Amino acid sequence: MVVDLRSDTVTRPSDAMREAAKNAEVGDDVYRDDPSVNELEARAAEILGKEAGLFVPSGTMGNQVAIRTHTDRGQELLADEHAHVLKWELGAVAQLSSLQTRLLDFGDDGAPTPEQVENGIVEEGLHEAGTGLFCLENTHNYRGGVAVSKAEIDAAAAAAHDHGVPVHLDGARLFNAAEALDTDPAALAENVDSVMFCLSKGLGAPVGSVLVGDEAFIDRARRTRKLFGGGMRQAGIIAAPGLLALENRDHLADDHRRAERIAEGLGDIDGIETTEPDTNIVVADVAGTGLNAEEFVGRIEQHGVLAVAFSETTVRFTTNWDVSDEDIEGAIDSVRTAMRD
Amino acid sequence: MVVDLRSDTVTRPSDAMREAAKNAEVGDDVYRDDPSVNELEARAAEILGKEAGLFVPSGTMGNQVAIRTHTDRGQELLADEHAHVLKWELGAVAQLSSLQTRLLDFGDDGAPTPEQVENGIVEEGLHEAGTGLFCLENTHNYRGGVAVSKAEIDAAAAAAHDHGVPVHLDGARLFNAAEALDTDPAALAENVDSVMFCLSKGLGAPVGSVLVGDEAFIDRARRTRKLFGGGMRQAGIIAAPGLLALENRDHLADDHRRAERIAEGLGDIDGIETTEPDTNIVVADVAGTGLNAEEFVGRIEQHGVLAVAFSETTVRFTTNWDVSDEDIEGAIDSVRTAMRD
Amino acid sequence: MVVDLRSDTVTRPSDAMREAAKNAEVGDDVYRDDPSVNELEARAAEILGKEAGLFVPSGTMGNQVAIRTHTDRGQELLADEHAHVLKWELGAVAQLSSLQTRLLDFGDDGAPTPEQVENGIVEEGLHEAGTGLFCLENTHNYRGGVAVSKAEIDAAAAAAHDHGVPVHLDGARLFNAAEALDTDPAALAENVDSVMFCLSKGLGAPVGSVLVGDEAFIDRARRTRKLFGGGMRQAGIIAAPGLLALENRDHLADDHRRAERIAEGLGDIDGIETTEPDTNIVVADVAGTGLNAEEFVGRIEQHGVLAVAFSETTVRFTTNWDVSDEDIEGAIDSVRTAMRD
Amino acid sequence: MVVDLRSDTVTRPSDAMREAAKNAEVGDDVYRDDPSVNELEARAAEILGKEAGLFVPSGTMGNQVAIRTHTDRGQELLADEHAHVLKWELGAVAQLSSLQTRLLDFGDDGAPTPEQVENGIVEEGLHEAGTGLFCLENTHNYRGGVAVSKAEIDAAAAAAHDHGVPVHLDGARLFNAAEALDTDPAALAENVDSVMFCLSKGLGAPVGSVLVGDEAFIDRARRTRKLFGGGMRQAGIIAAPGLLALENRDHLADDHRRAERIAEGLGDIDGIETTEPDTNIVVADVAGTGLNAEEFVGRIEQHGVLAVAFSETTVRFTTNWDVSDEDIEGAIDSVRTAMRD
Repeated sequence: MVVDLRSDTVTRPSDAMREAAKNAEVGDDVYRDDPSVNELEARAAEILGKEAGLFVPSGTMGNQVAIRTHTDRGQELLADEHAHVLKWELGAVAQLSSLQTRLLDFGDDGAPTPEQVENGIVEEGLHEAGTGLFCLENTHNYRGGVAVSKAEIDAAAAAAHDHGVPVHLDGARLFNAAEALDTDPAALAENVDSVMFCLSKGLGAPVGSVLVGDEAFIDRARRTRKLFGGGMRQAGIIAAPGLLALENRDHLADDHRRAERIAEGLGDIDGIETTEPDTNIVVADVAGTGLNAEEFVGRIEQHGVLAVAFSETTVRFTTNWDVSDEDIEGAIDSVRTAMRD
Repeated sequence: MVVDLRSDTVTRPSDAMREAAKNAEVGDDVYRDDPSVNELEARAAEILGKEAGLFVPSGTMGNQVAIRTHTDRGQELLADEHAHVLKWELGAVAQLSSLQTRLLDFGDDGAPTPEQVENGIVEEGLHEAGTGLFCLENTHNYRGGVAVSKAEIDAAAAAAHDHGVPVHLDGARLFNAAEALDTDPAALAENVDSVMFCLSKGLGAPVGSVLVGDEAFIDRARRTRKLFGGGMRQAGIIAAPGLLALENRDHLADDHRRAERIAEGLGDIDGIETTEPDTNIVVADVAGTGLNAEEFVGRIEQHGVLAVAFSETTVRFTTNWDVSDEDIEGAIDSVRTAMRD
Repeated sequence: MVVDLRSDTVTRPSDAMREAAKNAEVGDDVYRDDPSVNELEARAAEILGKEAGLFVPSGTMGNQVAIRTHTDRGQELLADEHAHVLKWELGAVAQLSSLQTRLLDFGDDGAPTPEQVENGIVEEGLHEAGTGLFCLENTHNYRGGVAVSKAEIDAAAAAAHDHGVPVHLDGARLFNAAEALDTDPAALAENVDSVMFCLSKGLGAPVGSVLVGDEAFIDRARRTRKLFGGGMRQAGIIAAPGLLALENRDHLADDHRRAERIAEGLGDIDGIETTEPDTNIVVADVAGTGLNAEEFVGRIEQHGVLAVAFSETTVRFTTNWDVSDEDIEGAIDSVRTAMRD
Repeated sequence: MVVDLRSDTVTRPSDAMREAAKNAEVGDDVYRDDPSVNELEARAAEILGKEAGLFVPSGTMGNQVAIRTHTDRGQELLADEHAHVLKWELGAVAQLSSLQTRLLDFGDDGAPTPEQVENGIVEEGLHEAGTGLFCLENTHNYRGGVAVSKAEIDAAAAAAHDHGVPVHLDGARLFNAAEALDTDPAALAENVDSVMFCLSKGLGAPVGSVLVGDEAFIDRARRTRKLFGGGMRQAGIIAAPGLLALENRDHLADDHRRAERIAEGLGDIDGIETTEPDTNIVVADVAGTGLNAEEFVGRIEQHGVLAVAFSETTVRFTTNWDVSDEDIEGAIDSVRTAMRD
């Protein structure tokens, strides 16, 4: 038996989602004729308190469409040095949007102070293109799935807005943050200009993400999506299970509980250090095992546990809908056995 | 009743495709774990006689991924002045691949002579970046769905290859061409380096296209797809109906027959001129009606027939799987009535 | 003795220009403190009837700064298939400005008809980025130094303006055109939005070109120049001889007379065909000599005459200030001798 | 009387340089026929111990040509958060080279530790484009004209080379560093792959910079220079005074001595804090005066002293060849008077 804790992207759709795919009412979404896509976009916007939504095939596309739509070529993007949009999207901010990047250290909280934001903003000048966009991330993936509070999001966003700089929130796992903070997702999105969230991560849908913002922004983003090749036809086939995923989010609490159990269970193993996770991501420091992260991942894979090397010495375990309480206990046992070898 | 002849992209999936979506075996395709996607990619490559395939969310992405993967920034792309990749993809060749475009007039055949290709190729020099890619299109959309013969494809491709220039075929409707020419699709693809074809056009699948080529090319294209945001997760949900569409192509002959009937029926109406179509696209010249193309499209829409203005004086009608023989006769009658008003 | 007819760019500065360089009043032009540059820019604008000017280190930079400043990424540039900006500037329109190129055949006159312009313009749409700029060239280099008349320039520009498309004139040799047409240069520039002309070609200055247009345009162009690395410091050292070159243009008539003599003299040689030149460029067809252009150029170089291969069968000879009547006669004799071998 | 301490770019050429401009042997440098340019390029390469050189119209162009020539689009550029190439070149690394930027804090020394470099390098991967270039700066402008020692340069460069990452040195003021460190300039350049230095800053030449590196690199850089519009014609007119400037560098010691005197003199004024400068740049903290930097600069300008605001609270004074010992004493007196008002 294999327990796959590499990511919450590996989740397979539920039977209900499969039924939804089968029965979806569809049309040609490039002509905006797909009722399922339209419904998903409207509902996503509503849940996050924005005017409009745009369905996209991936989180990377949602982020990069937003980034390009907010900015002019040559401007600076201000973001965390460990932001997903910079770290794992193949340099797209430079390649697709011609943006220079200015980095902050968001720290363990996953959010900068207003002072950091203020210091990072560059005014347009004779020699300076100026800051075009500020990016936040919630939950913050690299920083251990940290759920960033509304107060922190709002303070950082306000600092950017004070200088006329728009704010995009990479909310790939925003609903995990809302669950962990016991907050309305719309509250977390209230003071940012756009949000991208993924249907295909913790929510469990097979394919897709949604970008939300005001109507004028989404109109322009739709054009950017076309440019990037993200205009799909009878996309209702994937939007319908996506909508179902969006409406049924209770299981996220279970994912978080299971992540806590993993942190606890692995933390009891010699040489592995963990901290209590906020959400569904556990980052374990394995330096004490004498293995580097790649070696550790290879070793536990032989015992049926899949995880990903996150840095030289850290390994990420992500709980997801396809992983049960029993799986978690089995995985902990397997890692313990693997370390004994 | 509305007869939608705007495009073959509007086709809704069959019940069998919906069942296939529901029952698809899936995994995370970014990790290459989706069996349905893998099967579709392998099967597409096999049908077209290439080593490997890549599933993408749209035809635009398939073309633009191919174009970028074949070239270096600053090179020239040689293509028809009416190529889809230049005309309807938002300037992506310049925006995403930094290519300068050099245009040929492919004429009514939808293919240039070898001499035209040779004259259009620019050698790299002190002041010249050189030609990086030559693009063909089959069927040729703007030129009336013309099916380009293997002989023409091969001769043009050979002229490019003689100068070391690779060849990409925009085969959005390649299977229509193969049907019309009564040729093996692999024969049409034999002498080009990459082919993109659409599952979501005449083949009737809900979403997606496939790019095929040799393994090294597809490996690099996979990375370009990630950059453009085209990496999807449990994409088997759309790949499975796509595979079904790919394996069942007999209905294309019906689409072509119906297109012939439209050409004939509309051609009998005063002021409308048509020529016999090769495939499922009929381009009608409506100048004789005293209406321009936009006005003509607006007028017939009021009578329940949807088509698209293609130029100042021409209107495109495209048959597709959702349109029956009765629909066609009804559409012809409606247009006749509309013109009488 | 060598007669260098490769280009009018090879001209060495006169003693007066050298004196002007030595005595130039200078300052830091990035701070706009260089009086010589300021004077040159103002005078260039005045001569061409525009509001403002910008000194740049090369004609390529002048053209590319103009092209980028006029457009948004992804738009189309409409130009001659043999335009210098497309043919010999390393794909810069795509690389530096992300523009797709749409080409016209300007023909022997070096200018398109208004109908051609109109047909080449693409309106912005759901799938189309739209035309952002139309480019003219005067004199037209590749088409044999043709001087394009004010009537033709104005008619083509009007067709673009009717669709809201701005017009840039690559006037690298505009003063040759004005001389040949016996027209005020400002008249040739009257109905275009920007003009680049070279000081370092027929005018004989050592370095530099000037871009002129309205003030708002030039302000933005100054920023683009900085981006491209064209901001120089005590540039008065080259602007001062440039100003002298701009004010003393009588010798252009001699260059044209000498070009006529070359055309006549070479045309009398067996196997060489020439037509009467408009300006200082003679394009000779050497197919009849049994040599291709490269071979022909190599052969005459051995006899002390330098020229450039322009296509497979044509060779360009360009008169310039450093070439006297005696040089011309000597060059004709040398070519005749070379062909006898 | 005005004392201009804004920059060393404001220096006007000496009489000897003006004579050199007048008497320069020239040719068309695009054809590589300019003896003065060729001599300058060869001599610059020799002085810095590299194979070849390339004359460019500005420091920005030299840096950006190097950056693009070393890298592929989408890679990361690793540099100081206060690097000139990122701070004052209009986002060119993203706009002209499509590079994502990863920033280090080089600290007061103006150089990172090898550990910082190592941590900043990103390996190419499925989601990562990888680091393409590491940039150093010497002297480091924003960090107060700090002269970075050979040991620090070499250690940082070695860390990059260990990962196969090439190193470019922005040596706009490299000769100031060599003077301050009493080192052979070639020693400072020994372990980096390319160096750009400015003739038009402390060395006092009117226009231009030189990029040096190995022959294959410079060959490719020459092409990039052409693309950016940096190919000039009879550039010997500015290369000749540049060569003179390069050969006569003794006055740099005077600039440094005068900068020390400024730091001392201004440091004695209430509210102004300075530290002893390494080279010709003094960064004064004026927070104690109750004025912000912009206000301070405005105030002293009224008393005939020009400087530039460097941050909210710091002002930069740069000594240069046009500023005598008397000027310095006068400037100190004027600032003192200005602060008394």
